[in-house]
Amino acid sequence: MPSAAVIGATGYTGALAASLLWRHPSIDLVAVTSRSGKGRLDDLYPRHRVPLELEELDVQRHGAVDAAIVAYPHGASSGVVAALRARGARIVDLSADFRLRDPDEYARWYGDHEAPELVDDAVYGLTELYRDEVADADLVANPGCYPTATLLALAPLARAGLIADVVVDAKSGVSGAGRAPSDKVHFVTADENVNAYGVPLHRHVAEIDQELALLGAPVTATFTPHLLPLDQGELVSCYVTPARPTDQDELAGLYADAYVGERFVELTDRPPGVRDVRDTNICRISVHEDPRTGKLIVFGAIDNLWKGAASQAVQNLNLMLGLGEGEGIT
Amino acid sequence: MPSAAVIGATGYTGALAASLLWRHPSIDLVAVTSRSGKGRLDDLYPRHRVPLELEELDVQRHGAVDAAIVAYPHGASSGVVAALRARGARIVDLSADFRLRDPDEYARWYGDHEAPELVDDAVYGLTELYRDEVADADLVANPGCYPTATLLALAPLARAGLIADVVVDAKSGVSGAGRAPSDKVHFVTADENVNAYGVPLHRHVAEIDQELALLGAPVTATFTPHLLPLDQGELVSCYVTPARPTDQDELAGLYADAYVGERFVELTDRPPGVRDVRDTNICRISVHEDPRTGKLIVFGAIDNLWKGAASQAVQNLNLMLGLGEGEGIT
Amino acid sequence: MPSAAVIGATGYTGALAASLLWRHPSIDLVAVTSRSGKGRLDDLYPRHRVPLELEELDVQRHGAVDAAIVAYPHGASSGVVAALRARGARIVDLSADFRLRDPDEYARWYGDHEAPELVDDAVYGLTELYRDEVADADLVANPGCYPTATLLALAPLARAGLIADVVVDAKSGVSGAGRAPSDKVHFVTADENVNAYGVPLHRHVAEIDQELALLGAPVTATFTPHLLPLDQGELVSCYVTPARPTDQDELAGLYADAYVGERFVELTDRPPGVRDVRDTNICRISVHEDPRTGKLIVFGAIDNLWKGAASQAVQNLNLMLGLGEGEGIT
Amino acid sequence: MPSAAVIGATGYTGALAASLLWRHPSIDLVAVTSRSGKGRLDDLYPRHRVPLELEELDVQRHGAVDAAIVAYPHGASSGVVAALRARGARIVDLSADFRLRDPDEYARWYGDHEAPELVDDAVYGLTELYRDEVADADLVANPGCYPTATLLALAPLARAGLIADVVVDAKSGVSGAGRAPSDKVHFVTADENVNAYGVPLHRHVAEIDQELALLGAPVTATFTPHLLPLDQGELVSCYVTPARPTDQDELAGLYADAYVGERFVELTDRPPGVRDVRDTNICRISVHEDPRTGKLIVFGAIDNLWKGAASQAVQNLNLMLGLGEGEGIT
Repeated sequence: MPSAAVIGATGYTGALAASLLWRHPSIDLVAVTSRSGKGRLDDLYPRHRVPLELEELDVQRHGAVDAAIVAYPHGASSGVVAALRARGARIVDLSADFRLRDPDEYARWYGDHEAPELVDDAVYGLTELYRDEVADADLVANPGCYPTATLLALAPLARAGLIADVVVDAKSGVSGAGRAPSDKVHFVTADENVNAYGVPLHRHVAEIDQELALLGAPVTATFTPHLLPLDQGELVSCYVTPARPTDQDELAGLYADAYVGERFVELTDRPPGVRDVRDTNICRISVHEDPRTGKLIVFGAIDNLWKGAASQAVQNLNLMLGLGEGEGIT
Repeated sequence: MPSAAVIGATGYTGALAASLLWRHPSIDLVAVTSRSGKGRLDDLYPRHRVPLELEELDVQRHGAVDAAIVAYPHGASSGVVAALRARGARIVDLSADFRLRDPDEYARWYGDHEAPELVDDAVYGLTELYRDEVADADLVANPGCYPTATLLALAPLARAGLIADVVVDAKSGVSGAGRAPSDKVHFVTADENVNAYGVPLHRHVAEIDQELALLGAPVTATFTPHLLPLDQGELVSCYVTPARPTDQDELAGLYADAYVGERFVELTDRPPGVRDVRDTNICRISVHEDPRTGKLIVFGAIDNLWKGAASQAVQNLNLMLGLGEGEGIT
Repeated sequence: MPSAAVIGATGYTGALAASLLWRHPSIDLVAVTSRSGKGRLDDLYPRHRVPLELEELDVQRHGAVDAAIVAYPHGASSGVVAALRARGARIVDLSADFRLRDPDEYARWYGDHEAPELVDDAVYGLTELYRDEVADADLVANPGCYPTATLLALAPLARAGLIADVVVDAKSGVSGAGRAPSDKVHFVTADENVNAYGVPLHRHVAEIDQELALLGAPVTATFTPHLLPLDQGELVSCYVTPARPTDQDELAGLYADAYVGERFVELTDRPPGVRDVRDTNICRISVHEDPRTGKLIVFGAIDNLWKGAASQAVQNLNLMLGLGEGEGIT
Repeated sequence: MPSAAVIGATGYTGALAASLLWRHPSIDLVAVTSRSGKGRLDDLYPRHRVPLELEELDVQRHGAVDAAIVAYPHGASSGVVAALRARGARIVDLSADFRLRDPDEYARWYGDHEAPELVDDAVYGLTELYRDEVADADLVANPGCYPTATLLALAPLARAGLIADVVVDAKSGVSGAGRAPSDKVHFVTADENVNAYGVPLHRHVAEIDQELALLGAPVTATFTPHLLPLDQGELVSCYVTPARPTDQDELAGLYADAYVGERFVELTDRPPGVRDVRDTNICRISVHEDPRTGKLIVFGAIDNLWKGAASQAVQNLNLMLGLGEGEGIT
């Protein structure tokens, strides 16, 4: 059974990744590390019930695993990934460090990169869109939560050349803002509230633009995230100006074809709610034509901590290790 | 001191209107009516502390007040308004019955109208935009909550001829769905959830289009409301394709000019949160140019029960009765 | 593989039971019934993903399964249970109908009983306390959610003869109030609120008293439930006047002995939170001596829909069918 | 018009106090200070709309006001209060520093005291119980939020000699934990959760015991606070073992007599919810006899930031300054 480690297991996504791997039927979680946390992971997160001691990162030892999920912040990740890769570990990286193809774009949004030589090796791990590439990869850049929902929602339109312009209004639960305490994530601030943030320039937009172009829609997206008073869950509402007239039948066909046989994508008639995907690796999607304006409205709902991060990382790891894609996440 | 009644005081907006009038320094609330509720209003809504007995509507008696706020559902309102008007009462109507100028549009979204002859007399009561007309009116159609936030957010752009196209992504707390119990408003359904509804055709869009055109922007808006897990509060995120290039300075100037001296409109640099307008008659607005796409992003935050309904009704009533515009709502 | 049905699958607990059985590795869920609902269960509860058509109850056919979980309301259940039992099905009944040993007590709190002859056959299914009896039973009365948490929290003290008196202050999420829409469970009523209900006589107290007496504590408990603004989760805070002086060491020992090897009971030093048991069959318990008053304070946290209802039902069914106790619920 | 300052205006209670005084018809708020915050108070708390610049404390200048509300943490407050008193300002202190009569008790729970000579001058500001003393005081120790609700709920029983023993199970919204960010108040920690804290020794119990004894009930209370997923609101559920038999009629009479004419105390038949007192200075109370056990159950609901802190401070300040008791808080 392949061995695995979670590097940076005390944040929300790293801890969930550890929980999923701990219960994984075909992967042996042998280590969880933390830069600051000490003690057992199940003291920090009782509900994840992972009875492992948090370790300091030891590249020699931890790089000797078959595979690692790295859950470090942007910028801090690339150096660690390089070191672990040098020891031979396959990596799924949850940070943004290997998502952007263009070094200038990376520099613009995130600053210096510590392992630019690895960027070309990295595969963008939106599993449903790049399954074969992920299976052959040694390094996977796990997509951001917003790009995951947005790209799954828009891929069929992008591939069909239907996107002339798009506005993405995204809504996320508070866990998306991370575990570090701050006024923003204080219960009294977030409760009974909703507001946009990162306006007008949230860095996830670079990732969305890059991937939409690769899918066939070379647009500059308008992207605005909002913080909502819920813990897990993310909804993107995409407003597409179509490149040509279409209709509900064509739309339904496009999506059905695109996602036939995909167990982690669900197509619905009614706009999906995030509650229906909570604690799952599933993205629920509905597509609608507005008969008044001709605009196409597409909704994508995911759990930001699962499909938006940890469970998609495991999904990718499964493919990289030749395991069943859904093992440990269904 | 002028006398007033609230006709239909057991819904959320009617009850709040009664609460505001009960404490109003210059209006004497003499009656609250209900079609189904019985007993005292403060038994039904302890927190509003209005110690009046709910009465059955008696058009003769209740029409003899100086002014009435009618909080009946769409369709049910117009007949009652006509009867009360016939007795001489000035009316602020919270329903949609007198908002749409075009009878065909009304019929399309709401069905038959019981008092079409009064439609032309009605003034659209978005106070900041139609203050003088409201002051002279005997019948005011109080705007819907979504149109209130949307039109205040977009009016400066519409008047400047800047709106070529607009997408409005609206988010509302559950009180906007009304007091009638249903699966949709069950705590377990709405909690930890977010989803769009009324897709692709929510009837508030007719009101938005009509008013945007009157302001100078004859567009067909794309409008999508979402239900959020909070009780009171509404945010509209408006994505405008500008008719010509503009910049942040021009935008700031337009909004400052439009709302100078308006005590119930607050302009902010950062995207506003609904928590900052909870239990107030205030609309907070921020406007941003997206430097990547050129789109204009405008946020408007209100309390759907207050500025979106009851407190704007009182604001209008104040003007109609020659009182200070902010009396009883500050 | 034994076959099973869920009788009454459209309420919260029945639907969850169906979801658990649908994924159960050693039980074959063959039918879900409903008195009022139609269509597929996954239309009603997308998140449970049970693609079965809701059926009308057919006692002949549905009684032919090996086992059934009955999730009917109190009073409506006993007749159905009798009919299914007559056809040979083993039953776990989620209602209160077979919990109370004393027919007079049942009548006092619930009214007439349609199958009094079966009461003596029924085993009280608090699994950790009555494991052997459950394994031999054909009819199990699944405990109420409040009694489950309370009895697990108090059993070690009751057996040690330590309970002279007890006050149980219970707090439950809104799902405990059921799926039927009402003003009480309206989001706007429950949100930002907390209040006691069923004061001073909630009927779960009869069940608590009966079972405490059987465990060795013949007391009359003071029991007060409160409704909290969360969906799933239940905490009981038990204040015990000890029958004799004790200390923290003795208490720790009592609990450790009582629950050694119990995978679904977790003992903690700090007061447990319901978030730590969400979506699990686990009860987390902490016990404290108040050095100022000598009172013993015991907290028990469960998920009211899981250990308080559906997953405990599956736990019992596993034992009745000779399966692993934790199958399908871990 | 008397002048006032709020010393420590950036915490939740200090900011609310500033907001109340800013709108007070008969008090002139001239300064708000902060130890760490800078800028304008309405930047920090837009919703309070207090357009004052935060100042560093200057004892000479700020002590020259007629009255000050001090909202410093326990321990940090006494020295500042002494300095401001020396300059002549009347003080309402929101900390615990002047609440405990017994210096040993203070030292046990809070450590050293910087102004022990002022303790005897301080009046315990539970307004409804000590109105006359407050009116004559120059220094008022504003009660803790839990003691406020508990003592108002229990005072009629204590005075009647009816309390032989009492358990207080208290539930508070997250604002009660203060504004400092931490894991405890992170939205993701508090949401969908409930747990006790400060077990078994929360320091508010010393204040409760002291005051119950003064009212006629020399008991050692069992007191356990719980954190709930709501922002403002506090409910205490008090379980009293009566010193002698009583009945519902006597209880109703005791409470009616105790609170006749009290505008900020509401007696209800049904258990009160905190939503009914949100943003008010009101305590809602219900009292019940449990016919099975003879225990008396009393509920008290307040808004922890209002009656539990800031609005009661203003209520006291009004009395100290000879103003109407309800000015600025109704």
